[in-house]
Amino acid sequence: MLPGNMMDRPMTVPSILDFAAEIHGDASVVSARVEGDVHRYSYADAHRRVSRLAHALQALGVGDGDRVATLAWNGYRHFELYYAISGIGAICHTINPRLGPENATFVINHAEDRFMFYDLTFAPLVEALSPHLPMVEKYVLLTDAAHAPDSKLGPATYEELIAGEPTGYDWPVLDENTASGMCYTSGTTGQPKGVLYSHRSTVIQSLVTSLPTSFGADHTDIIMPVVPMFHVNAWNVPFSGLMGGSKLVLPGPGMDGASLYELIEQEKVTYSLGVPTIWLNLLAYVEENGLTFSTMKYTLVGGAALSEKIIKGYEKHGVRVRQGWGMTEMSPTGTTNFEDIGFYDLPQEQRIPVQLQQGKALPFVDMRLVSDEGEILPHDGVTSGHLQVRGPSILSAYYRYEGETLTMDGWFDTGDVAVIDGEGMMHITDRAKDVIKSGGEWISTIDIENVALSHADVVNAAVIGMPHPKWDERPLLIVQLVKAPKQTPTEILEYVCGELPKISRPDDIQVVDEIPIGATGKVLKTKLREMFKDYVLPDLREDSGTSSSMQGGEAEMIRKRNTKPGQPDKPGSGPFSFLRKK
Amino acid sequence: MLPGNMMDRPMTVPSILDFAAEIHGDASVVSARVEGDVHRYSYADAHRRVSRLAHALQALGVGDGDRVATLAWNGYRHFELYYAISGIGAICHTINPRLGPENATFVINHAEDRFMFYDLTFAPLVEALSPHLPMVEKYVLLTDAAHAPDSKLGPATYEELIAGEPTGYDWPVLDENTASGMCYTSGTTGQPKGVLYSHRSTVIQSLVTSLPTSFGADHTDIIMPVVPMFHVNAWNVPFSGLMGGSKLVLPGPGMDGASLYELIEQEKVTYSLGVPTIWLNLLAYVEENGLTFSTMKYTLVGGAALSEKIIKGYEKHGVRVRQGWGMTEMSPTGTTNFEDIGFYDLPQEQRIPVQLQQGKALPFVDMRLVSDEGEILPHDGVTSGHLQVRGPSILSAYYRYEGETLTMDGWFDTGDVAVIDGEGMMHITDRAKDVIKSGGEWISTIDIENVALSHADVVNAAVIGMPHPKWDERPLLIVQLVKAPKQTPTEILEYVCGELPKISRPDDIQVVDEIPIGATGKVLKTKLREMFKDYVLPDLREDSGTSSSMQGGEAEMIRKRNTKPGQPDKPGSGPFSFLRKK
Repeated sequence: MLPGNMMDRPMTVPSILDFAAEIHGDASVVSARVEGDVHRYSYADAHRRVSRLAHALQALGVGDGDRVATLAWNGYRHFELYYAISGIGAICHTINPRLGPENATFVINHAEDRFMFYDLTFAPLVEALSPHLPMVEKYVLLTDAAHAPDSKLGPATYEELIAGEPTGYDWPVLDENTASGMCYTSGTTGQPKGVLYSHRSTVIQSLVTSLPTSFGADHTDIIMPVVPMFHVNAWNVPFSGLMGGSKLVLPGPGMDGASLYELIEQEKVTYSLGVPTIWLNLLAYVEENGLTFSTMKYTLVGGAALSEKIIKGYEKHGVRVRQGWGMTEMSPTGTTNFEDIGFYDLPQEQRIPVQLQQGKALPFVDMRLVSDEGEILPHDGVTSGHLQVRGPSILSAYYRYEGETLTMDGWFDTGDVAVIDGEGMMHITDRAKDVIKSGGEWISTIDIENVALSHADVVNAAVIGMPHPKWDERPLLIVQLVKAPKQTPTEILEYVCGELPKISRPDDIQVVDEIPIGATGKVLKTKLREMFKDYVLPDLREDSGTSSSMQGGEAEMIRKRNTKPGQPDKPGSGPFSFLRKK
Repeated sequence: MLPGNMMDRPMTVPSILDFAAEIHGDASVVSARVEGDVHRYSYADAHRRVSRLAHALQALGVGDGDRVATLAWNGYRHFELYYAISGIGAICHTINPRLGPENATFVINHAEDRFMFYDLTFAPLVEALSPHLPMVEKYVLLTDAAHAPDSKLGPATYEELIAGEPTGYDWPVLDENTASGMCYTSGTTGQPKGVLYSHRSTVIQSLVTSLPTSFGADHTDIIMPVVPMFHVNAWNVPFSGLMGGSKLVLPGPGMDGASLYELIEQEKVTYSLGVPTIWLNLLAYVEENGLTFSTMKYTLVGGAALSEKIIKGYEKHGVRVRQGWGMTEMSPTGTTNFEDIGFYDLPQEQRIPVQLQQGKALPFVDMRLVSDEGEILPHDGVTSGHLQVRGPSILSAYYRYEGETLTMDGWFDTGDVAVIDGEGMMHITDRAKDVIKSGGEWISTIDIENVALSHADVVNAAVIGMPHPKWDERPLLIVQLVKAPKQTPTEILEYVCGELPKISRPDDIQVVDEIPIGATGKVLKTKLREMFKDYVLPDLREDSGTSSSMQGGEAEMIRKRNTKPGQPDKPGSGPFSFLRKK
């Protein structure tokens, strides 16, 4: 190998801030604060404060490779921590407050965090956790002295910590493979597992998501990452946004529809990013109050599958929706569903099936499909298989984890089952562990859920496989309904069955008060499986005299058996009403 | 240092093609061929032919680290060579045919090229050079058997070479620091020097120039790199264009106004990139023939300073002009002059002074200004200094070069003198070797040239410093005029002086038939200095009875001394007419 004669210069996180402060110094970062007001400053101001913070961290004793925990919303102090912690060669470990006390304790101890920076919101949580965190030496509250409550932790406040420190800092020249950040998976199954990002992976992700075919924001955009900074670096928007020179709007603790709407309008946000749940809540708020968006033109939805409801709902308000897909383990973005030329000239019904797919891979994200037997499958738009990925921003091993992270030949199995077509369009048909194996075929629970979600009465839907002696498994549809549904569950099931191929038609429908959601906004199917562990499919019940002769025939029977149209099922009525209460 | 747990996957050139063929497989590459027709195919087709070529190269004996020379226009076969040569771990050495036979021989031997691929156009040149190229073992003509002329080199044709090879190729996993390409500087002073690009530097450049604030093209764009593929990888457009999924239009040998215009209109080019000379020629063609552009919206100009004439000329036809700046040694792009929000709402006269600056640095291109004494200078928009750069896509050493390439502390001195303002806007005021040092002040020759170029009679202009016993140096303006100038040289000089501060006013004007241009389109000031070595400034001539009492006073005197208005100087008349002939 003949090496090129190019400078051996690393691509590191602080160089993004240096760049941004010099080239887009006047661009602003606006933060809705826990303190209740709105804070605004420029990239150049941020650079000065990050320098102060870097000095302060060193004075505090933060050393090379130390893990520093953050428990904070999207805001400028959290943003400063991202840059200063990684800039001095330490690791910013963002903690998801939705993990719950037990998992939070686990991850802080597993990461061996020596320092913890936290928002006022989380002061009670941190105080409760602190006796169980023997490794944490210093607690810093992300506020100033005036806003600091009395605390038995006697923490320093952030503003006192950085006050008086110099506004310039000479970043050490780090190897770009140095760890810069850390995030634990939400751990819907088993204990959370740690993903340790490097400067290199973070910068590469920030670059590839800056392509016009991905997030592609520039200095003319006002972008609001609603996706939390406490999980997978808010999809790297705090980095990529700075490369483009965008105005950043950080929504702080106000993730409800009203707060988001007000901030979007006030700051003239043009572009936002977040998970479906957030957009559904915001949409509901906008609709209920007869409002619309006056500046927002685009929203990028990821973290969970996009629904027709979101696309249609936002388009009514002139907002286009683009889907992205990724995983904590992928830093996180793997695909974005950018639009072909003339896409928006097509009628909506033609567009939606395309928009509901996960999109096309970014550069340096290799994807392949593999069968249960380990055979590489074609990208033909039909064959589904285990989706495996590879690339410089994809993890090689979980942090301090004894199991195998990768396949024998070095790919990461996403746990998803997907189809990829000849143009690289990837469509996740299911989680491998959720897929329903019925009579030798794989049934996508996501397809069924999407149809259910397109019904006006359905707020949320989840499908799980129920054991069946003849077919192995058959789908059960579980729904959460609007307050005043217009149709009975039976009618809803009938609608859903009418939209699906025979094999995919659910055998039954069940209504719950609330579909359980995990720490990153995903449906907790494990919990649903637990809730429905005693449930029996209709044709297997002792009171059922018939047994369906073929798959997919069940719906017809249920239709006959259920309550009449116009008489909605009431919570608490019917044989399985116990399921509707937790 | 704690390393991140991310996969150790390299960013290499062939992975761009793999990506593009999968994700943007239907996007097309259109080439105006030397054979006279237009060739078109898809990225997916390109991928298959590149695979064939990779096999063919190995069959030919191209090994790891071998240098393979190309002498070719912008076209699909050259494009395939870019990917296949670097893909197998060899180095694509693009040769600039404008180097001249002597320099071409030098660079081929210096690089120790073992193979040479060349367009039909260059067959006579290659045959003439071949006796002097002892290291070249195989010659391949970039055509098919039907178009191949008889040749004493008995070369294989490209199409015969790749025919029958398999359409898939498993790229070796290369270290991303492996050399991928090579380009020699044009060598306006001294011998050409080789710059050896790596996969890493090429990919990083392709990514950062893909930012919306730089070239930022995507799948909705039809881009035409007129900047030649035989020099600095056509600014990496053959790579970045594929990342965005743009339709690529490669103009082949037709670099004249008529050919370019026809291709732009026929292929509906939206975006083009090239050097000022090309755009001036194209503009002249469009104007002379009463034409306009129907699809082209943007052009990126680099390689030499942009002029007001280009900006105004293209805007008249609805084409916006963005300036970029870089160097062969920088892979090459260092800055682009992206527009602030609302920039095009400003009146043209306010915009032009901004557009004439070189722009703002890309991420991972560090810039600094240094005084003659090595002191780091402020970025204040006023202080000028030696422009030095640093980054992962900037060379560390010329290839097999004994001298020092970098400064003691590892920066590359661009040889330019520049000013950078507080917002990172960089403005080159001169080449360090061209700057005129007059009475302790630095005079920018570029500023004077730009004013001269804004005169309707001036086709091209160059300013050189002439020795002066009192001021050390004073500027001499040398111009090439239109066929039928409306004003005398004296009147032109008067106009130029009227637009400049006193110190910068040229002491004299001289008209030449043609300003000499080097291999990369830049004015050869060395040649002008040679041409004017016996020239004496007006106030130093023996027939001059006066000596100006202060700098900048010379213009007034010349005005009085020269021919009357309305009586243009004729070539061949006057005391220095010998200068107008070579």
